[in-house]
Amino acid sequence: MTIILGVDPGSRITGYGVIRTEGRHMEYLDSGCIRMGEKPLAERLQIIYAGLAELIATFRPEEFAIEQVFLAKNADSALKLGQARGAAIVCAANAGLPVFEYSARQVKQAVVGKGAAEKSQVQHMVQALLKLSRKPQADAADALAIAVSHSNFRQSMLRLNVSRTVRRGRAS
Amino acid sequence: MTIILGVDPGSRITGYGVIRTEGRHMEYLDSGCIRMGEKPLAERLQIIYAGLAELIATFRPEEFAIEQVFLAKNADSALKLGQARGAAIVCAANAGLPVFEYSARQVKQAVVGKGAAEKSQVQHMVQALLKLSRKPQADAADALAIAVSHSNFRQSMLRLNVSRTVRRGRAS
Repeated sequence: MTIILGVDPGSRITGYGVIRTEGRHMEYLDSGCIRMGEKPLAERLQIIYAGLAELIATFRPEEFAIEQVFLAKNADSALKLGQARGAAIVCAANAGLPVFEYSARQVKQAVVGKGAAEKSQVQHMVQALLKLSRKPQADAADALAIAVSHSNFRQSMLRLNVSRTVRRGRAS
Repeated sequence: MTIILGVDPGSRITGYGVIRTEGRHMEYLDSGCIRMGEKPLAERLQIIYAGLAELIATFRPEEFAIEQVFLAKNADSALKLGQARGAAIVCAANAGLPVFEYSARQVKQAVVGKGAAEKSQVQHMVQALLKLSRKPQADAADALAIAVSHSNFRQSMLRLNVSRTVRRGRAS
């Protein structure tokens, strides 16, 4: 049994999702958004860090999964996104969690079955896979989808009889 | 008397400089580089965080100054730089330090007297202003220049008889 914290960081809102996974079975534990609002940069980053540290203390996840960014829209948004990612990843690393990255395409492939799926399909499939009574909020759904992708990935690694401690090719 | 930690973060090397300032007087305390090498992202960010946390514990700075990024070269380098900045700023914020940002232009203006100065002029002036026996390494010199800029800025604020707690217009 492994608890996974999935995170979808943004400069204003950071989505998170916590699932428990055992073999092919996945169980929803929690999800939501950390909202940074219009505060100064340092405060926004501290809100991400403190929010994730609190989730880690509460749910004691063993692994941390985050969306990998390949093509940012432009340099300005990439810088802002990078700052949020930096605060989130360093929080996980400081807590001793291994960090796994999945591209948006890998997440869609894992959750919907095709890499070019729509956002609404991801939301729908996350709801179905985790047996939720209603659609999770968009950022929370993305974070849950990242956690589900990591659960699938580690399950396929176990099937291949590879050590559980082996990290993804492009781990970080 | 105020101790200032200046930081110039990068995805591979983060320069730092620590100065003590009192009125117009500035005294060099320490400078150097935190090298992240070719490690995975999470480890690199943890090295920045741990390195700055150690400096904060050692020198107990009251204020933290960092270069503000206006125009990143491209989205990929902006993302990497953002991640490093995020780890650095959240470390300072977690330690309770107020964070001040200065653009490269402001730093050059403060240290050399013109916003379009060459890097080598910045190094030269940092050496002269802090009475160093030799030129600091380039990243360390940039970080010291940021600390010197903040020292100048806060001095001009004091001259204007403005409260010491007032932050820069574009504080973060």
